Amino acid sequence: MTNGDKIKENSINNDLSKIKTAITDIESNKIVTRGYSQEDLIANITFPDMVYLLLKGDLPSPKESKMFNHVLISFCDHGVTSPSTQTSRLIASSGSPLNVALSGGLLSFGKKHAGAIEDSMSLFQEALNDDIFDVYNFENYVNSKDFDNSIDEIANDIVDIYLNDNKKIPGFGHRYHTKDPRGAKLMDIVREEDFIGKHTKLALAIEKILFEKKGIHINIDGANGAILSDMGFSSSLGLGIFMIGRIPGILAHVNEEITQKEGFRKFCNIDDISYCGYEDKHLD
Amino acid sequence: MTNGDKIKENSINNDLSKIKTAITDIESNKIVTRGYSQEDLIANITFPDMVYLLLKGDLPSPKESKMFNHVLISFCDHGVTSPSTQTSRLIASSGSPLNVALSGGLLSFGKKHAGAIEDSMSLFQEALNDDIFDVYNFENYVNSKDFDNSIDEIANDIVDIYLNDNKKIPGFGHRYHTKDPRGAKLMDIVREEDFIGKHTKLALAIEKILFEKKGIHINIDGANGAILSDMGFSSSLGLGIFMIGRIPGILAHVNEEITQKEGFRKFCNIDDISYCGYEDKHLD
Amino acid sequence: MTNGDKIKENSINNDLSKIKTAITDIESNKIVTRGYSQEDLIANITFPDMVYLLLKGDLPSPKESKMFNHVLISFCDHGVTSPSTQTSRLIASSGSPLNVALSGGLLSFGKKHAGAIEDSMSLFQEALNDDIFDVYNFENYVNSKDFDNSIDEIANDIVDIYLNDNKKIPGFGHRYHTKDPRGAKLMDIVREEDFIGKHTKLALAIEKILFEKKGIHINIDGANGAILSDMGFSSSLGLGIFMIGRIPGILAHVNEEITQKEGFRKFCNIDDISYCGYEDKHLD
Amino acid sequence: MTNGDKIKENSINNDLSKIKTAITDIESNKIVTRGYSQEDLIANITFPDMVYLLLKGDLPSPKESKMFNHVLISFCDHGVTSPSTQTSRLIASSGSPLNVALSGGLLSFGKKHAGAIEDSMSLFQEALNDDIFDVYNFENYVNSKDFDNSIDEIANDIVDIYLNDNKKIPGFGHRYHTKDPRGAKLMDIVREEDFIGKHTKLALAIEKILFEKKGIHINIDGANGAILSDMGFSSSLGLGIFMIGRIPGILAHVNEEITQKEGFRKFCNIDDISYCGYEDKHLD
Repeated sequence: MTNGDKIKENSINNDLSKIKTAITDIESNKIVTRGYSQEDLIANITFPDMVYLLLKGDLPSPKESKMFNHVLISFCDHGVTSPSTQTSRLIASSGSPLNVALSGGLLSFGKKHAGAIEDSMSLFQEALNDDIFDVYNFENYVNSKDFDNSIDEIANDIVDIYLNDNKKIPGFGHRYHTKDPRGAKLMDIVREEDFIGKHTKLALAIEKILFEKKGIHINIDGANGAILSDMGFSSSLGLGIFMIGRIPGILAHVNEEITQKEGFRKFCNIDDISYCGYEDKHLD
Repeated sequence: MTNGDKIKENSINNDLSKIKTAITDIESNKIVTRGYSQEDLIANITFPDMVYLLLKGDLPSPKESKMFNHVLISFCDHGVTSPSTQTSRLIASSGSPLNVALSGGLLSFGKKHAGAIEDSMSLFQEALNDDIFDVYNFENYVNSKDFDNSIDEIANDIVDIYLNDNKKIPGFGHRYHTKDPRGAKLMDIVREEDFIGKHTKLALAIEKILFEKKGIHINIDGANGAILSDMGFSSSLGLGIFMIGRIPGILAHVNEEITQKEGFRKFCNIDDISYCGYEDKHLD
Repeated sequence: MTNGDKIKENSINNDLSKIKTAITDIESNKIVTRGYSQEDLIANITFPDMVYLLLKGDLPSPKESKMFNHVLISFCDHGVTSPSTQTSRLIASSGSPLNVALSGGLLSFGKKHAGAIEDSMSLFQEALNDDIFDVYNFENYVNSKDFDNSIDEIANDIVDIYLNDNKKIPGFGHRYHTKDPRGAKLMDIVREEDFIGKHTKLALAIEKILFEKKGIHINIDGANGAILSDMGFSSSLGLGIFMIGRIPGILAHVNEEITQKEGFRKFCNIDDISYCGYEDKHLD
Repeated sequence: MTNGDKIKENSINNDLSKIKTAITDIESNKIVTRGYSQEDLIANITFPDMVYLLLKGDLPSPKESKMFNHVLISFCDHGVTSPSTQTSRLIASSGSPLNVALSGGLLSFGKKHAGAIEDSMSLFQEALNDDIFDVYNFENYVNSKDFDNSIDEIANDIVDIYLNDNKKIPGFGHRYHTKDPRGAKLMDIVREEDFIGKHTKLALAIEKILFEKKGIHINIDGANGAILSDMGFSSSLGLGIFMIGRIPGILAHVNEEITQKEGFRKFCNIDDISYCGYEDKHLD
């Protein structure tokens, strides 16, 4: 006798073991993704185009295809300095397999570590598309304010608001670099390729003002956030694209860690730990 | 007073918070990966080349570059049928964010799900490179056996051993497809591109015999296992490359799940659960 | 030459590899947790007291000790119906080890699955402690409203607000049970033990009104949310305590899954997947 | 049209969305675990008994109940020194939620970090139960050797084999402590409580010889491995029980990390990273 004889689950839940998908259709000896047979895709497109097709549903234009390739490369690696890479190496050093070490590293993409790309995309997209401009995501900060159409004025307002509040604008400035070479290079490329939509225009306008006032440049998150917004990606996919670009780098680090075959790592040595709790207590 | 005043940790452990890396050098305003500045890489290579550079340390030849692009695409997606995709969708449906859902899916790459690519790479590499041919990875199965140089004879021996043992040869046959269209397409491409090294030669020889005897074709794992072995990748990186190719597909599924915004999924309904434990017991 | 010769990281980051902790002091041959030597703790207290000591910093009173034991047991297992348990079994079925399967299951404690305990704790604590009562966590919903001191009136207001909004009150009602036997039992015990603080009083008052109006009872999350609030736990630890109680159950399921040694599970069969994407497209 | 109209999956796979469980039976308003109603369990047993019931299927004897409580406490915490705790704190410091930080920490229980408890259980159980004694787990090391019945002789053989091979015996010796206070205390308790089965007898015999020859004592893994083996737990559950005991400690650390609200941690500072890769290369 199954549990089903004794209890009646509501009908919505029953439906949840059925699934509708628009991504891939599997038939015997035929695999069709976003309308194209995988044989066709394997033979004829580039891997960045495949990523674009999976996430957006259609193939990119030739210009988007080229730019999306630059974007993915730019995320590749920032050495052993990033928390995700350190977490993956830490786990790998405990003897866990490749997929487990990678998996753990992805859990380090918390708000503080990987939020900037999505925050910058939200900033650009909300500043330009929404009637009510919410300068700090999801907080009603300036909803009574009227914004002019001019992108320069919007940029001015954004910088003013953040600086008055003594907050960092997501996508600008870098912990290690006074000028993030990746952000700068990407902006060079969009200029050369004439791939400048309204979001990139806004990003460049913000950078100009910020640099004059504070000597701060656009970083990789701001540059990619602007480019991806111009391509029509929703901010909710920003971290996803960052991860696709970064994962090969993390795997290279995990592989290096495993190959080095040392003992397990720690983020602090015993000398760096100080105890600040109770003095000795005793149970009666 | 720190713990370090009270206890002496051995010196090896102290070294473990120092790290040597050959992947990326970070200097102020300069990021150099595998010897190339990232600005140079962002502007001039393809993303598959970037993956290859990170994992192997050097850029691919033009032919390898082309083939590695085909390989990455071929892993892209197999619909909602694979355990990793199902796990990621299950987690996404509970309201967890993108990186968390992806991370959980990667944990499903256990021995039963994603072992075939590495197993086929081990099989090909051990069959051709090692004096003692260990047909089942790491088990001394046929170590007394003399193998001829001929790839056809090796293929014959492999098929005989597995069939006699009633075991599947890793990289051949598919649960859903009588002829995996991805494996077939990849083998077409290596023929067209004349990208056939000794491992691919062996894979094709095995397929020929298996098809004659059993009607079984090479699958995606066997095809990519052979190509990656010919490129000089160690079997321990097989799953890593599979994951790089598959993750964009998993993210597309997670995004679809989140967009559909239904309740949380289950892999079984209450009707499908049957209880087979103790009858009622009581505490005194 | 190290990277440190080339780049100057800010001083805050350097401090982050030093760590201060008030939990456990490690000296050679001596381990002291929250002031007590672990030898003392191992010999003299109960495991629930140990959990309480770790999380709250001090040992519970005898009454709290007894009640905390009931609380932990009540979370133990809800069969194969919960998403976390299903995720863990799914991962275990792919051949991944025990810790990996457990880890993946915990990732399913997203907002939709495990949010109710913390939501109910926030509701009770905010309703009773805060000047501005925010009935939906973190939304300024009723901040202009004056609340009387009377717990019955607060309960009335809460029920009115939620019912008017056609929303579920966190901690009341259950998908499978018209009367969650665990919630009911815990409320019986607090009455017997006279362990009724203001939060439990509020929970019981809400249940009384909800039952009269809608036939809805308190569930496990509401009952434990009230008891833990009376013990002084912050809502941010609600999910932590739930996990401590539930993990033994998940491990029992993972072990059962591994022991059954079947193929890998899925949350849907191929018959349950329908494709709703593009018709066939072709690359030129 | 569903995929199922187009493809026929094998019948075994269809069965995998049905599930048989002996753990918990869910009926409307009734939850029965291992034969007991949860109301009964919540009111009448201890949480350690609940853990035992879930994992072994039956309630412990009074003596086992007492001892299992000591065992669970002994795993509670080893400060910020262990890789799992460090991983969890690292992830928490990135802004990820409680369950995600805990989940990542569990991924650090790789072979090098948490293998000792299961290795010591395998060692004791294989030494005493199996005809062919496999002193290094799963390797046929001494399978031709005849062992006497005497536990002292078995202990002697084990120590000889490991010392000759210059290997550590799992469950003995400690990185930080010359005498692990937890292992010593547990052995005191089994003596007081007269809870000494054949596995504990063997562990004590090994410790005696090891101490004479090398000054090495039993550690927490060896002590618990012996006790749990005497209770009839299979070695495959050793890590599970360790995790149940340790998770409250990890959660206390995660909570401390979140409360401290500093920036994200790293296991190494930029000064500790040295680059050992290619000198500058350029793309043509």
